[in-house]
Amino acid sequence: MQNTASFYELVNYPLDRYHLNLNEVLFHNANGYIGIRYDFEEGYPEEYNFTPSQYINGFYDYAILPQAEKLYGLADEKQSILNIANTQTIKISWAGEYFSMFSGTLLESKLSLDMERGLTLRQVKWRSESGKEIALRVTRMTSFHQLPLFTIEYEVEPLNFSAPLVIESIHDGAVLNYVNPADPRIADECIQYLTPVSCEIKDGASYITSRTSSSGLELCTCVKNQLFNEHQQEFIVNNDEAVCKYEIKAQAGKKIRLVKYAVFCDSIRYPNCKQQAELEIKQALSMPLEYLYQKQTDYLSAFWHNCMVEIQGDIALNNAIHFNLYQLIQSVGKDPYSNIAPKGLSGDGYEGHYFWDSEMFIHPFFTITNPSISRALIQYRYATLDMARENARIMGHKKGALYPWRTIMGRESSGFFPAGSAQYHINGDVAYSIIAYYLVTKDIAFIAQAGAEIIWETARLWLDVGNFHKGQFHINGVTGPDEYTCIVNNNYYTNVLAQYHLNWAVKFYYLLESSQCLRELEAKIQIELWEIKEFQQAAENMYLPYDQNLKINPQDDSFLQKKVWDLDSIPKDNFPLLLYYHPLHLYRHQICKQADTVMAHFILEDAQSEETMLNSFKYYDKITTHDSSLSPCVYSIMAARLGMEDLAFNYFKTTARLDLDNMHKNTPDGIHTANMGGSYMAIVYGFGGFRLKEKGISFAPIIPQPWTAYSFKICFEDSRILVHVNKQQCIFTLECGSEKNILVYGKEYLLNDQLLIPESLMNERNLQ
Amino acid sequence: MQNTASFYELVNYPLDRYHLNLNEVLFHNANGYIGIRYDFEEGYPEEYNFTPSQYINGFYDYAILPQAEKLYGLADEKQSILNIANTQTIKISWAGEYFSMFSGTLLESKLSLDMERGLTLRQVKWRSESGKEIALRVTRMTSFHQLPLFTIEYEVEPLNFSAPLVIESIHDGAVLNYVNPADPRIADECIQYLTPVSCEIKDGASYITSRTSSSGLELCTCVKNQLFNEHQQEFIVNNDEAVCKYEIKAQAGKKIRLVKYAVFCDSIRYPNCKQQAELEIKQALSMPLEYLYQKQTDYLSAFWHNCMVEIQGDIALNNAIHFNLYQLIQSVGKDPYSNIAPKGLSGDGYEGHYFWDSEMFIHPFFTITNPSISRALIQYRYATLDMARENARIMGHKKGALYPWRTIMGRESSGFFPAGSAQYHINGDVAYSIIAYYLVTKDIAFIAQAGAEIIWETARLWLDVGNFHKGQFHINGVTGPDEYTCIVNNNYYTNVLAQYHLNWAVKFYYLLESSQCLRELEAKIQIELWEIKEFQQAAENMYLPYDQNLKINPQDDSFLQKKVWDLDSIPKDNFPLLLYYHPLHLYRHQICKQADTVMAHFILEDAQSEETMLNSFKYYDKITTHDSSLSPCVYSIMAARLGMEDLAFNYFKTTARLDLDNMHKNTPDGIHTANMGGSYMAIVYGFGGFRLKEKGISFAPIIPQPWTAYSFKICFEDSRILVHVNKQQCIFTLECGSEKNILVYGKEYLLNDQLLIPESLMNERNLQ
Repeated sequence: MQNTASFYELVNYPLDRYHLNLNEVLFHNANGYIGIRYDFEEGYPEEYNFTPSQYINGFYDYAILPQAEKLYGLADEKQSILNIANTQTIKISWAGEYFSMFSGTLLESKLSLDMERGLTLRQVKWRSESGKEIALRVTRMTSFHQLPLFTIEYEVEPLNFSAPLVIESIHDGAVLNYVNPADPRIADECIQYLTPVSCEIKDGASYITSRTSSSGLELCTCVKNQLFNEHQQEFIVNNDEAVCKYEIKAQAGKKIRLVKYAVFCDSIRYPNCKQQAELEIKQALSMPLEYLYQKQTDYLSAFWHNCMVEIQGDIALNNAIHFNLYQLIQSVGKDPYSNIAPKGLSGDGYEGHYFWDSEMFIHPFFTITNPSISRALIQYRYATLDMARENARIMGHKKGALYPWRTIMGRESSGFFPAGSAQYHINGDVAYSIIAYYLVTKDIAFIAQAGAEIIWETARLWLDVGNFHKGQFHINGVTGPDEYTCIVNNNYYTNVLAQYHLNWAVKFYYLLESSQCLRELEAKIQIELWEIKEFQQAAENMYLPYDQNLKINPQDDSFLQKKVWDLDSIPKDNFPLLLYYHPLHLYRHQICKQADTVMAHFILEDAQSEETMLNSFKYYDKITTHDSSLSPCVYSIMAARLGMEDLAFNYFKTTARLDLDNMHKNTPDGIHTANMGGSYMAIVYGFGGFRLKEKGISFAPIIPQPWTAYSFKICFEDSRILVHVNKQQCIFTLECGSEKNILVYGKEYLLNDQLLIPESLMNERNLQ
Repeated sequence: MQNTASFYELVNYPLDRYHLNLNEVLFHNANGYIGIRYDFEEGYPEEYNFTPSQYINGFYDYAILPQAEKLYGLADEKQSILNIANTQTIKISWAGEYFSMFSGTLLESKLSLDMERGLTLRQVKWRSESGKEIALRVTRMTSFHQLPLFTIEYEVEPLNFSAPLVIESIHDGAVLNYVNPADPRIADECIQYLTPVSCEIKDGASYITSRTSSSGLELCTCVKNQLFNEHQQEFIVNNDEAVCKYEIKAQAGKKIRLVKYAVFCDSIRYPNCKQQAELEIKQALSMPLEYLYQKQTDYLSAFWHNCMVEIQGDIALNNAIHFNLYQLIQSVGKDPYSNIAPKGLSGDGYEGHYFWDSEMFIHPFFTITNPSISRALIQYRYATLDMARENARIMGHKKGALYPWRTIMGRESSGFFPAGSAQYHINGDVAYSIIAYYLVTKDIAFIAQAGAEIIWETARLWLDVGNFHKGQFHINGVTGPDEYTCIVNNNYYTNVLAQYHLNWAVKFYYLLESSQCLRELEAKIQIELWEIKEFQQAAENMYLPYDQNLKINPQDDSFLQKKVWDLDSIPKDNFPLLLYYHPLHLYRHQICKQADTVMAHFILEDAQSEETMLNSFKYYDKITTHDSSLSPCVYSIMAARLGMEDLAFNYFKTTARLDLDNMHKNTPDGIHTANMGGSYMAIVYGFGGFRLKEKGISFAPIIPQPWTAYSFKICFEDSRILVHVNKQQCIFTLECGSEKNILVYGKEYLLNDQLLIPESLMNERNLQ
């Protein structure tokens, strides 16, 4: 078995707008800091009205959130990710004839994504209208080794002619955010968020510095071109654009090679971003491109080594999971200034905001394969804790912190609070991710440094938002994950997660009881034992709705008294329902946009009996539309958990290739990172039956009928465990680290080298 | 006893901006069609930045309702009442010296409102800086006899000088809606809704025709000046303004008298509004002004005769109730194109929209004193029934009609649906007002013509929005009157009103069973017996929340499990709470903006026992902030109903003089018509204990301790009854019409002339 992280390749792909947009996404380059959509360097016909787009994770401007009625505390401003300076453009011409994919004759074209090397490659053979033929090979990279760096290696070879050839390499600071005329919120105004304030040539490189309109941020981009052929060079510079123009005596059969280095430095990370850009470009140029390529391969090699998943017997799904994991490492922020957005860095859908998607759908992958990345994601939440405190005050809470439902820099950016700020479960989600990080790493130092403060401050909100009623702790007036039911009392997901959160708030207190850290936090946030006891009391008496008749957990107090809406009666064209029905109509029916109670049963399975989870699954399965891409993966996991293997596999198939096959028809707007994380979980938590708990880790693998085998790896404490499952056996291999006790199908084993579970013991699921 | 509808007078009032704005409202002229705020004809110093304002009831333009998130079905456009052409301005000058209230020396000034004659009067004595003295007397009227007509009788007398005097009478079409810089929704843009398209002089009158920006409406205003002194006259006309300029040889001691006639014709009522303006001005000029004044007095004499209320022993409250009733007759629309707005025609607060205020707080006054006005108000709802049907479709209902929460022309204009469109009780409110009209008039022909169609179409909504659950009919996902608790299940007010509505939907079916009308409606709206039976079944099984422990009706299913918020703990400056707390914070507490369940007990007292109503009153009284001006009157009525006379009187006092004393500090934005209706109800329904039911009318008067006597009149069927209450007795007098059985303190009497109930029988309240 070997690492087969592979190529994804398209040959002779269509050049209509829709497919170009799709490929912009599927072949985008990103490294968690910058993301560049795959635009052709030579540009597009004018009528295509293309907006080449590139983003910095966490770099934003403010935009107005117009509220029809200005109620107290409603967000009236949001953050929005920005399209930044375009460094992609390279034009080639001879005697006035320009190369373009949209003129002449395209003899060959191929796009490929190399997920082992972290490069995208475009290969083209083309004949001009006058019969001149060229071969083109373009290699693009956003460097994992040097995050601000984006390179384009541009090789062109005249095949049947020699002529003076002109190359114009453009650095353009005049960019606008993408405007979708179909979206009336932004149709009429094409806001210029970023204004170039200087454009300068220094040491043969162009520097464009831009400023945001209202967030007070700056960006400096630097472009340096290296042409490895004899040439004449000049710069044409105006206020917001620098053109580096080359003239070369091109000869048939002789390759011309240009390397275009671009660095992007923002003032969030680099207060003096111009100076940093100078340092970065110097560093990039200090070594050959091949060295940077090697560093890229090294980085990814380590990544794949830790997280490798292989599916045997289904190439399409195997490719899909590799693609998905690659997109996650491309998308995830690796510093305290950023997190991971629903579209990663492949589009500005959801405006680059961070949601619970990160903690509940993407963290798990990193936590059990590359926990240092989860740690960085938690650091982002820690860095914005003060703003979560401020948000809690806005929402009327005298102490504690409430994370915003959607944000870039920490302030709430959701315009419709019933399906936004009301989702208090975000606090529990953040806590859950920290607890999981601790369970994997036992990194109590990090809990002491950041985790405990977050957990206690967010736990305080439950005490303030909830109240005792008839001896039980109720949480009223919140919205659960299902956005088709808003502002409810005792949402099961919220309550059971709050209970877990409060329990861990207590546990961490005792774990840190004698530490210096606790003394400091006592002084800083006045956490004291009486409050910890309140946490404990609320957790112990948490009200978890349960229906005696149906023997299920109702989604909330009043869910079951609402009308059932027969899903089969709804016209196929009326999905997603949110585009066709008034919110009130949705709210008063038993209809779910996504997994809610079923999700709670997945993440906290010990809170209920098998029977309740099974009954609940069957109940909600009938009334869930999966209008959110976060839903099918959870249903896949729980179907596997509850013994419905075929259903689990069917749900899995709808998640794994969602973007590769553009199943939701909106991949051109960007990838679906949460679904990608979910497809990973469907394998590891679903088929693999993996669970991470206080008492340790456990497995209960099943294998989908069409597969011959599959394998995945788990990082746990100091060890890494390779799990291989085929029809005959499960093999657990301790790849590195100390021996571990693991539970397999409910039985405890000591894993010190390799453990083989034969077929006869498989499929006996008992995860309790 | 005689009609004492009287003067309200201010002498030497302050001339600061705030008081001027207040007086603009208190002295505004209106007749239900046009409303003219009281602006000084001579204008204001530039720095006052005054916007003279005048409105037509129901005349609107569209404005954008910006939604932060574009959910399906949300209103993205609202209607807004318009400031229309200004015909108020009259300037007087001699040798370049202009009369102004803000220069020279004001020797005397007096503003008065004559509520018997329907006129406002301004009297001024003034000395210019050069020592010239004039006396001024200005009489203004919006005619009840000829609704489009507004007159200014302007008399000026030079007291100590003779000179050539110039009068400029201005007709200005270039008007903007008032912009409040403190309101961020409109601060930055001063929208010009109304654009003058022509300005013409014809037969000595000026005509300005204007068009709205997007509602496709037109307005023609015509101004004709009559000067009863020797003069020279010229017109100065430009695109949007006509100035009629006079030169007079003024002589000391000789009055100059100008009458300025203005007519306002909109294209809603008058498709050819220019032609209509010509007819109207001709009609106005065909008789002397004194004749029009007499007609005004006649109209009001009839009005007061029908509705007269007198309080003896408290002049301030007696004046207040007269002022309030006068404002109601000024404000109420009298055609099917208009209704009555929260600010009447005295300001553009709430943008001139119509709410449930009309049906539940203002109808009752007209229904029992001038039922033909209620009938006109119901005709307005009938005229917009098709739009209510359209609204129901938007909200996801396949049949029936749902009236919008706020509207001018019938389409929903509320931007925040949880406290807007979710208030489905509006359907019940409309039905309630129709039933009350029927109970007073027994006008079954009107029910056949309009009422039944409204009642059945709106009743259908209950069947669609509600559902049976465990044998009872539930109504989920609506908002009751209390806007501090939104989107709830089984709001008591909504459910009990829906039950009453459905019961009457059934009754009217059987009342009309053999009529031609029913055949026509069967064809038109497919109403059939099976559906009537469904109405009946839902009504019979209506779920009305009741709490066994507290023995009260909970406001909704989950109200009592929420946190109680001690009102005394809230800083005084934090009221109204909606300006200081996030909606979610309000929603999750037991806190009421206004009467909700207590209102339900007032309007439908037979649904609960005395004990439940008393317990409920005491419970809600502690947690109601009365942040809505619709609330104290209801508490006053129910306190009186339940034997808490002092409390009833205290609540009454906060309603009766709300505008006269500017108690909420926002009367400068306009009067509070619903509170005015409420103050009337507090006397008649509260102290008088009047009730209107299917079985007849009943009374149970009490008399507040500070009063010596009070009286009111009730119009019932063909009769009018005068009720006089003093400390020793109640006297019921049949003023006209046939004899009636009435219930007094629960005992039945035949009233055929006069009925005297001695003190010994008073205060025995039994309204059942």
